[in-house]
This record gives sequence, structure tokens and C-alpha cells, in this order.
Amino acid sequence: MRIILLIMALFASLPALADEGMWTFDNFPASTVEKTYATEVTPAWLDHVRLSTIRLTNCTASFVSAEGLILTNHHCVESCLAELSSKDDSLLDRGYMAAKQKDERRCSTQLADVLVGMDDVTRTVAKSIGGLDDKAANETRKKVLTELEQSCEQASAKAKSGKVKCQAVTLYDGGQYFIYKYKRYDDVRLVFAPEADIAAFGGDPDNFQFPRWSLDFSMLRAYEHGKPAKTPNHLRVNFAGPHADELVFVAGHPGTTQRLETRAQLEFERDVSLPSTLLRTAELRGRYIQFGRSAPADEQLVEAPLNSLENGLKVRRKLLDALHDDALMARKSEDEKALRASAQIAGLDPWTEIEKATARQRALHLPHTFIEGGAGFNSILFRYARLLVRGADEKTKPNTARLREYTDVALPRIEQQLYARVPIYSEVEVLTMSFSLQRMREWLGPDHPVVRKLLVKESPDALATRLVAETKLNDPLVRKQLWEGGKSAVDASRDPMIVLARSLDGDARAIRKQFEDEVEAPISAASERIAAERFKAYGTHVYPDATFTLRLNYGTIQGWVENGTPVEPFTYLDRAFERATGASPFKIPDSWMKVKSQLDMRTPFCISTSSDIVGGNSGSPLIDGEGRVVGLMFDGNIHSISGDYWFDTAKNRAIALHPAIIREALEKVYGAKSLLAEMTDG
Amino acid sequence: MRIILLIMALFASLPALADEGMWTFDNFPASTVEKTYATEVTPAWLDHVRLSTIRLTNCTASFVSAEGLILTNHHCVESCLAELSSKDDSLLDRGYMAAKQKDERRCSTQLADVLVGMDDVTRTVAKSIGGLDDKAANETRKKVLTELEQSCEQASAKAKSGKVKCQAVTLYDGGQYFIYKYKRYDDVRLVFAPEADIAAFGGDPDNFQFPRWSLDFSMLRAYEHGKPAKTPNHLRVNFAGPHADELVFVAGHPGTTQRLETRAQLEFERDVSLPSTLLRTAELRGRYIQFGRSAPADEQLVEAPLNSLENGLKVRRKLLDALHDDALMARKSEDEKALRASAQIAGLDPWTEIEKATARQRALHLPHTFIEGGAGFNSILFRYARLLVRGADEKTKPNTARLREYTDVALPRIEQQLYARVPIYSEVEVLTMSFSLQRMREWLGPDHPVVRKLLVKESPDALATRLVAETKLNDPLVRKQLWEGGKSAVDASRDPMIVLARSLDGDARAIRKQFEDEVEAPISAASERIAAERFKAYGTHVYPDATFTLRLNYGTIQGWVENGTPVEPFTYLDRAFERATGASPFKIPDSWMKVKSQLDMRTPFCISTSSDIVGGNSGSPLIDGEGRVVGLMFDGNIHSISGDYWFDTAKNRAIALHPAIIREALEKVYGAKSLLAEMTDG
Repeated sequence: MRIILLIMALFASLPALADEGMWTFDNFPASTVEKTYATEVTPAWLDHVRLSTIRLTNCTASFVSAEGLILTNHHCVESCLAELSSKDDSLLDRGYMAAKQKDERRCSTQLADVLVGMDDVTRTVAKSIGGLDDKAANETRKKVLTELEQSCEQASAKAKSGKVKCQAVTLYDGGQYFIYKYKRYDDVRLVFAPEADIAAFGGDPDNFQFPRWSLDFSMLRAYEHGKPAKTPNHLRVNFAGPHADELVFVAGHPGTTQRLETRAQLEFERDVSLPSTLLRTAELRGRYIQFGRSAPADEQLVEAPLNSLENGLKVRRKLLDALHDDALMARKSEDEKALRASAQIAGLDPWTEIEKATARQRALHLPHTFIEGGAGFNSILFRYARLLVRGADEKTKPNTARLREYTDVALPRIEQQLYARVPIYSEVEVLTMSFSLQRMREWLGPDHPVVRKLLVKESPDALATRLVAETKLNDPLVRKQLWEGGKSAVDASRDPMIVLARSLDGDARAIRKQFEDEVEAPISAASERIAAERFKAYGTHVYPDATFTLRLNYGTIQGWVENGTPVEPFTYLDRAFERATGASPFKIPDSWMKVKSQLDMRTPFCISTSSDIVGGNSGSPLIDGEGRVVGLMFDGNIHSISGDYWFDTAKNRAIALHPAIIREALEKVYGAKSLLAEMTDG
Repeated sequence: MRIILLIMALFASLPALADEGMWTFDNFPASTVEKTYATEVTPAWLDHVRLSTIRLTNCTASFVSAEGLILTNHHCVESCLAELSSKDDSLLDRGYMAAKQKDERRCSTQLADVLVGMDDVTRTVAKSIGGLDDKAANETRKKVLTELEQSCEQASAKAKSGKVKCQAVTLYDGGQYFIYKYKRYDDVRLVFAPEADIAAFGGDPDNFQFPRWSLDFSMLRAYEHGKPAKTPNHLRVNFAGPHADELVFVAGHPGTTQRLETRAQLEFERDVSLPSTLLRTAELRGRYIQFGRSAPADEQLVEAPLNSLENGLKVRRKLLDALHDDALMARKSEDEKALRASAQIAGLDPWTEIEKATARQRALHLPHTFIEGGAGFNSILFRYARLLVRGADEKTKPNTARLREYTDVALPRIEQQLYARVPIYSEVEVLTMSFSLQRMREWLGPDHPVVRKLLVKESPDALATRLVAETKLNDPLVRKQLWEGGKSAVDASRDPMIVLARSLDGDARAIRKQFEDEVEAPISAASERIAAERFKAYGTHVYPDATFTLRLNYGTIQGWVENGTPVEPFTYLDRAFERATGASPFKIPDSWMKVKSQLDMRTPFCISTSSDIVGGNSGSPLIDGEGRVVGLMFDGNIHSISGDYWFDTAKNRAIALHPAIIREALEKVYGAKSLLAEMTDG
């Protein structure tokens, strides 16, 4: 009787009852959707959507023509625009449109991956770690995943179906392990981007707000062998868009959620991790803004990093608010209590093990974050140096003995980063490096051994200035030589940034090892045990936490009620003009002002949906029952930020760009008729 | 039986059992001290110490000669040094020494108050608000306090003993009301200050750290009628300093503590107030630092505000940590539970009333902070404008109907501020004003009516730039004319800063009124009820929270144990030289380097004591049993910051400057023999 009651109580709070969930494609609740919405989701529909959806390096996108044309957000190509800019010419500001195909410009650090297969390897992993203590299990688990990735890639190299990239995926915090196979496009080019003033209309003040008027889209194209890729799997765009209450789907790559984590883990976030990160972020924001105030040219140099920083700041601020919400914590405790009670019958208490591990995490967090996590060395040039120094070491080891981010399957991405010719502004490098050194001294204390090693004779400013002035790592050829030269070349280098990274690597590896053994290992082991309990109680009627792997969810077009006032699910173009002040971030660019009289002011602009998405879903296609694009996800409302920890059905809403405004812009403002034709005729 | 148990439990956590407490001079536990330390504290000793101790505008100090010579911290005169500096000449950097008495330079915004009398008016207040509802009681309480202040000053004007300033004081969060009488010196002059590099050696990294080597002292002099004040009540300095374990006292003005507040109030701090303030402070820090990096001259302009900001940042960061400490919150809950249980017997539940009020406080906090609190208008010039606009309105009302900060007793201080000729740097004004407008737009949202009123046509930067460029309020004569011209002059003014303050005043007063009625009133009423319960349980064996009024505590010279390692209570000069890197904040100035060989390297530098002090105690004399100065308080260790909420006997330590290093510096480095003689012969 007691167990049944418990299970009943558990089901009462089961996510699957709401239009909630970031479902893997192998476990999509099609029957629930059919029962609730009388819409059939067939295996063929799922395959087509999956093969049309793209993972970018930090976003989602989709193919919208047979010629490799990609639709994604403007903010997803912001770093590409910055890379293609110079001090005198900001593509972020003025936008970009390739007049002809040959003008499509390569985004040198961008990749496009399409998920073509998924192998469940849970049993193999379980078998390999059976009977090991937490620390040994943690090490072995990583080795096994590296082996599985390696053998997957080796097999694909011989197979007829073509070469794939293989990546291990941990689902349900250790409840399942998969090898995901991707078709990779490593030549991705910029086709179209509007001006930042309209793409990010409303700027940081409007970020995570709805109603909204940001034209947050851009277009890329995948190339193979120097030519536009053939992409028979692509989505058609329905420019009419969806209607209110319509059932819609979002395919994409939500980055991280912590919905299955324990209360102790959330308390660590609330008490330690979020406050310290927020403080550093807020100060760096101030430094960027003040730097940008000295001259308009300087403002451009920090525009992209500042946008990204401000987004992160708002997210973390609201995450902290969410963790201070009694209702959230109470629900977490309740869920945990129920599962905990049923586990205790089996004599297990992984929750207490996690509590103990988070106590260690509190002690190790700052040195780990500053020294290994790089918060003490915030500099692109230092990151190159770290990659080169550590990569040189790791490459001398057998593949399975390496740190996971330096295994053979990871090397191509590292090389792409190292070899890319991207602009590096030394003033900004000095700013961020000096800032992070100062904060490391502040948070670890002036007498910490690593701090004393670096700052006993030089001030943070002097050290940063010297390193940036004297290093040659801003030259991609130098980086290539060092990478290809391997350990002997790196050991012989006198480049000051390499010398710094080399002198720190022992300290950084030591704190990392301590963190892995004392925090990561017990948490991984305990999480696996909790996952097993959860499967026992619910089967797969729960969805795994987001891991930046492909997911599908369903919801409907709807607004919500804010403080008693209903918020409608659509916005229209006219209000954007009413809202404009003429000064960024509320400035409508000249290109629009010039054609204002020709525009249809009742064009729908943005859409609110009940879709369950988080960061990483940016650029996701919003899809109707027929598999057509009816919107382009780019944000959530302010309540959606708490989606990291739970899904608040009443208030969590996702925000999409309406396809009608994309058409209006391409046709009337930018005169991009061939692009429009390509999408329409597909 | 139950009540006895409760009382026993309560006594177990009673503060009076430790060397803890910020006691008022009328309730000092002399008998406990005598029992524990066999040292008699006589009424005459108490009177002498009280009459030798000074309240500065934001610090404590003491008379150390019969000619009005004042000893306090360097950081307490930082704003005076900044006021006496110019773009080309920073007294903060180079220090100051008046060669002759005529070179002593007036600190135009400084005051020195000595507490000469205390009248208990608790019954009068209680009588006046008996039977009123919370809102009416809140308004009446303020009126009565204004009346009492006014009649006190009127009486003193006629009395032989001389004119005094009268100020109402709320003790025990409403358990007691007093009128405190001060002798005021409004002509305070700078006599001596060392260079910032030695006064703040270690800078922000070492702030709140011990061991420590900061020469944080300075000297002022009180004047009356243009001549050095006669101060028969003053303290002699014992340059030998104290020995380990010696009983010592600190007289001073601890600013604010929240030890008697309820758990709901602390949770408001933890969840709402501290995080939002910290984020703003961190960003402003970044802006100041980046501003200062453009040129050494710019660095000087923001040095004083940056120091003060960084101090506040560290304090708040550690306050937040303290509130995340389970032990603290558990103790708070326990204390509360005990008192609550005994109160419920009497049918009272003021704790729940406070919970409800803090729920309203959460909702009102941001608009109140930005619009009325001034966080949206961070500018010296705006603060002048607010004073002028509001003062003009308030002065037309009868004294008891005014806002408390504009009553007759408060006007001299306002006038001193308005008339003072202090440097205002327009670049810094634009920086802070633009920053605060931006953040107001961020936190209240671009659609908040006040935000729309200001920023619908101008960006925050443009508005701030225009206001600062066009206002004439940087001229003290303009301010004086407007103040003396009263409401008609202010209403007629077209000064853009006045226009801004005028246009906002209705909004600001409205949110203030709402805050007073819905938050302050119920909390004040409930706090009075809790205080009454506390007196019932403990009598006056508890001490009131700090209120920036005169207190006395006792403790001993001792270090503490940090992570298993004992920290010794004294530091010596030699380690300061070992620690110097040559770059600020670890730079020893040339004046010291030149005479290094003549210095006694074993001179004691700083002292750790178990004294219970907080911010506001800066500059307090550390006093031995014979009433001699044996140290100058200037800081606490990192654990002392949690002293806002509780006193952690094991780890909370205060930090004093040793008198021997003061003598060494004055004699050998600065050649200030006459000052030394004045203190010695005094």
C-alpha cells in the first residue's frame, strides 16, 4: 500500500502530464501527442525533422533548401560576424548580404552537425565499471566512452554509409549512455545577416522579454568540397505562420538543464557558483562598457563579447531568483523525498553522498574555477596557449589515457580553433586578462601559491600588458607550427603566453584531479544510482536533462497571464516603429526607415509558444504538424529562465520570430529575392 | 516547567556570556567585567572615555590632546583628502602634513560630535502611539521624535551648560527611544595623513585580512571660534601598546547590525537586497577601474570612490556568505523559536507580521531603491538637486510635518553639504549617472513609467552627458542661492538637474510613502512587540543593534585559529618590507624607503583583538584598563563581517594599528616631532 501511494504521489508531479519535456528522438511520446492533439507523429516525420536539424557550435539551425541553405538566429552568427569584421568595418553593425554565391564568406570556427544515428551503450558502460569504487569508476567510465567513440569512427571510415563523427552522450545524469553519430559540415559560410540594430532591437533591456520585436535571424550555407551541400532533407517554410492554440514542435539542442539534480546540487549553485560568477560577470560588463565609451571604434571591439556577457548575466540573475523561489525548492524537496523513501527501502542513499560531495565542491570551487576553469586567465591568447601546452602533452599519450577533450575525436575541432584567422584586439585582451588576474588575486587571496607565482613582482595590469604585447600567438601560423611541432616545439617555446600556460599546467591539473576524484566521481556514481531508482519508478516517462544533444518537444501557440493581465501570443510590426527612440538599442536602421511606407505594418513579428526550450535551442525551427517551419526560436520570456530547474507550465514561454516578418524583410527591405525563392521553391 | 526550560535554552545562547556586545554607556556590564577580569570600570572612567570619544560623519575618533587634536583612521579622512585635492595634486597619494598650525586645512564636510547626555523617552513615545494602527503609529512616532529633538535643542539654547545638538535614537529595534545630546564641532581641520600607499598597504586584496600592515591613521583638529578647541577630556596614548591576552575596551560608533532582526528580514537581505546591490556595485567597480586605466590622472579621480566601493563590495560579499551559512540561520531559527513560543503564550505573533511585511518589501524594493533611494541617479549633482528640491518643499511645512531628514535639527548638516566647495569631476559624474540610468532601465524595465519619462528620446549616456554639461549645481554659490531662495527660487529654476529632480519628486515620494506604510510601519510595530518580549525574557542582559551611536565593548588581545593554524595577534614592520612588490597596492612609499635603515624592524604594526566591532567603529580608540589608547581600530578580519548578523566568538577578530608604529612613523619617517610631543605631553 505504501509503495503504491508513493508512486501515485510521484506521478502527480510527473512532467509528462504537461506539454513539457525535452525528449530524445528515440523516446518521443508520440502516443501522448496523438491522444491530446489528435495529431500523428510518424517515425518518418521524426526522421525527416531530425535529418533537417543542425547543431552549430553553440546553437541550433535547420536546412531550408536542397542546396544547403541554413536558417538560424542572428545572435548565433554574432561571433562569425565579429571574426569577419575589422576595427574599421563591423559586419555586426552594418549586416551582410552575399550578392552572389561566391560572396558567401566562410565562418572559420563554425561547424554544422546533423544527427544520423544513435547507439545505446548503457550496458557496455555499466559492465566496465561494475564493482569499482567511485574514483576508479569515474576514470574507467571516461576511458570506455573514449574507446566507444574511437571504434565508432573507425567503423564508419570503412562503412559505405560514409564517415561520421561519434560522440558519447550521458543521459539522465548517468541513467543512459549513447554514442551519437553526426554527419559534419566543417565549411559553413555566411549568406545573410541584418543589421544588429534591427536583429537585436530592444537590446539587453528587451532580452528575455515579450512582447518583442527583434529580427533575430540570419542565413548560412553548408558547403562540401567547395560547393553548396546537397541537402534533400530540409524543411519547407510556411510563411503564413501558425495560428493561436496550434500544436507546434521544436527540434533543437537545449544546452544544459539541472532538473534532475538534487537539492544539495541546486543549493551549491545558489550559494556558491551563481553568486561568484555573477559578480565577476557584472564587473567585466562594467569594464567593457566603459572601454566602449572612449570611442565608437572601441565600442565595436567589445560589442559581441558584451552582448554574450549581458545575456549570461541576465540568465544567471534570474536563475538565482529561481533558486530563491520557495515553491521551486519545496517541489524539489517533495520530489526528492518521494524517490528517496522508495530508494531507502532498497538500502540506498545516494542523496547523502551527493550532499557530502557538494560540501567538498564548495571548498574546491574557487581554485578550480580560477586555475583550471580559466576564470583567472580570461584571454583568447591564453586559451590558445593552454590548448597548445596541454594538447602537446596529451597527444603523447594513448588515446584512452587522455583527458576527454583531447581524444582523437576531439582534435579536429581544436585544430579548427587554433588555425582560424580571427581578429584579436590587444586592448581587449589586456582588459580581460588584467581583470581576471585581479579577481583571482582577490578571490584566492594574495598569498595563494599560484597568485604568488604570478604576481609577486608585477601588478595584474603590468603582467597582462607584457604578455599580450610579447606573445606571438595572435598569428595562426605560429599556433599551427607549435601544434604540429608537438611537445618538443612547445617545450622549447619562449613565447611568454606559452611559458605562463606551461608553468601553470601542473597546478591546474592537480586541482582538476582533486575535483574529479572528490566531487565529480562521487556525484557521477550517486547520480547513476538515483537514475536507476527513477527508471524503476517511472520507466522512461521522464525525459533526460538537456545535454546539447538533439531533442524534440511539443507545445501550443499561446501567451500567458502576467500579474493578472493576459499577454497575447503575437506581436506586429507597427509597434516596433512606435517603440523606436532613434538611439540603440531602440533604433530602427535606415534600411527600414527608407522603405517604411511600403511595409505592411500588420505583419506578425514574434510569437509566444508553450514550447519547453532553453539556451542552445536558439535557431531551432518551430515546426507545425506537417513538418513545415512556422517560426524561428530565438528566446524565452523572463520566466523561461527558471526552465533550467523546472518547467513552470503557467508562465514559461518560448519566443519565435514569425516567418512573415522574415519574408517582409527579405523582400521589401533587403531585396533578397533569390534567397526567398530558394526557400520557397526549395 | 516549560517556560523555565525555554528561558534556560535562551540563556544558553545569550550574548552576554561571551566577550560580545555593543553596550550603551548607560547599560555597560561593569560587574561582569569585574567578575571575569578583576578590573573595575567606574562611572568616572565611563564618563571620561565617553567625553573623549568623537563621532565623525562616518567614523569614530578620539581626542588625544588638550588642544583638540584628533586621532582617527586614514580611510576616515579619505573624502576630506579628495576634497582638498585637484586633478593635478592628489593629497590621497602624497599625504599631508601641516608644518604649522595655520597650515591645518579645513575638511569642509566633516563634523565632530561628542555625546554629552542621554534622555530616555521610551514612555513618551509609547504613550503617543498607544492604540494607533501600524500606519498611524509609524507617522506619529516620527512626529513625536521630531518634537522631542526640537524641544531638547530649544531647552539647551537657554541652558547654562551650552548649546547641544539633539538626536532621537531608536534602540533594540524599538524597545527603547532616547534623545542623545551632542556637543558639535563643525570646524574640523586636517593635520596629518600619510601617503595612501602605506596607509592602505595591501589595498583591496588585504582589506579585512590579518596579518596586516596598513598604517591606517591620520590626525585632525577640532576648532572653535577659529582656534584649536580646548578639550580637557582626552585620552593619553600608551605607545608601548597592549600585551597578549590583555583586557581592552573599544569606544565607538558601530554603524548597523541586524542581530535582533527576524529570519524573514535576513532572508530578504539574502535573496533580494544583497544580490541586487552586489551586482550594481561590481559593475560600477568595473567602470571605475576601466576609467582609471586610461590615464594616471584619471585614476586619481576615481581613487576615493573606488576604495569605498570595493570595501562595500567585500563586506556585502561576505554578508551574503554569512547568510548562506547554515549554522547562522539555524541559530537564528532557534533563538526565534524560543522567543516566539513564549510570545505566543501572550497571544502575539509579530514574527508573522514581519514575514508579511517583507513579502511586500520584496515587491517594492527595486522601485524604492532606484527612484527614492537614488540608485537610478548616482550623481553628486543629482543629490544636490534632490536636496534643494525636496528641502524647498519641506521647509514650507511645520517642523513636525516634515520628512525626518529635513527637520530643523537636520538643516545645518544639509547646509554644510550644500555650501561646501568640493571638486566635482564631470567625467566621473557622467560615468556614474549614465551607469545608474542604464541599470534602472534594466531592473525596472524599459516600460516602467519613470523610465519612459526619462529615456523615451535620449539614451542613458546622452541624458547623463547633457545634464552634467548643462547644470550649474557644481557651483556652491548657485546651490546657496537656490537653498536660500526657497521654494520660489527652486520652482523657477531651469537648471536641468533641478528640472529632473522636480519632475521625479512626485514619483519618488509616492513610492516612499507606499514603502513606509506597507513595509516600515508594520515592521516597526512588530519589532517593538518583539523587543518587549525580549526584555521580558532577558531584561537588559542583551545589547541593542548598532545604530551609529556611542557604544563600549570589552575583549582581549588575541588571535584565532584559521583552518587549524593559530594566527598570532601581533604583526611587525619587517614583514611589510618583505611583502612589498614595488607596485600598488603593495608599494612602500619613498619616504619610508629612504629611512629604512634607521627603522626598528621589530616595531609592532597591527594587533588582533576579540573586540566586537563593525563598520562605523573605524577610528575607535582601543583602550586599556587605565583608559589609555593602546591601539587604533581600523578593520576586522574576514570573519568579522558576519558580525552584522551574529558574533562568532571563535573567529571574529577586530584589527587595530599599534601605537608603536604610529610613533615610529611620526618620529623617523615624517619628522612630526611636535605632534608626537603634543600627544605625549597632552
